Amino acid sequence: MDCIFCKIIDGEIPAVKVLDKDQVIAFMDINPASRGHMLIVPKKHVENIFEISEDDLSAVMNAVKRCAQAVRQALKAEGITVLQLNGKASDQIIPHLHVHIMPRWQNDRLSVSQWEMKEGDREELQEIARKVKEHIPSGV
Amino acid sequence: MDCIFCKIIDGEIPAVKVLDKDQVIAFMDINPASRGHMLIVPKKHVENIFEISEDDLSAVMNAVKRCAQAVRQALKAEGITVLQLNGKASDQIIPHLHVHIMPRWQNDRLSVSQWEMKEGDREELQEIARKVKEHIPSGV
Repeated sequence: MDCIFCKIIDGEIPAVKVLDKDQVIAFMDINPASRGHMLIVPKKHVENIFEISEDDLSAVMNAVKRCAQAVRQALKAEGITVLQLNGKASDQIIPHLHVHIMPRWQNDRLSVSQWEMKEGDREELQEIARKVKEHIPSGV
Repeated sequence: MDCIFCKIIDGEIPAVKVLDKDQVIAFMDINPASRGHMLIVPKKHVENIFEISEDDLSAVMNAVKRCAQAVRQALKAEGITVLQLNGKASDQIIPHLHVHIMPRWQNDRLSVSQWEMKEGDREELQEIARKVKEHIPSGV
């Protein structure tokens, strides 16, 4: 299937990974809306929340919780926006379910409705991912 | 505790309910950003995703999935935005974890970053809730 997230999961396309578990993968968003913006993705290809199994959804959200805690600690974020879009009408771009974790700071004026599609610096993304992983217990 | 969502859960404050389960309640947002905007809330008071148990989070997200499916069918929504805010820096207003389900339509120009705090018509909210409940299997 010609799905960019499936290719990341299969290792065909590189990504800056934060977490890699049986059911779920997490990696840095290549066009970060805020510092530390990452995506949590089920490994089984499903397009949206209507299609995902309860078990995979639980695994995804458990990873969201752990990654949100870790990125908050690693970057001393003051808030976290969790966003999950379903369908083009909601501005979903990649048709493989993903949950956005966007670290927030007071008065950051971030628009989570629309953000600039500007590629992040790869070294900075790797440095952030390294810091975040320090805050994810090995058992996760 | 002086928490408006806890008071809704305890029945002290009325709300237009969509779902009422052991761990989770769902009700129409009183200031809807879009037609069918509802909130999914764990009954146990936790402020944010950092505090909720894995089990309660799974129950909440299972309810989010069921309610998203139901409101999509009931209102023929073209997309669904799922949003969960943590901390004032992310614009969380009520400090009791809640997940927003916002039905979307092509070119609705909805800003999920900021929406007008305008009270919805109660009869319309009740009519929407009635339609949504028709699409929630009784086992949910």
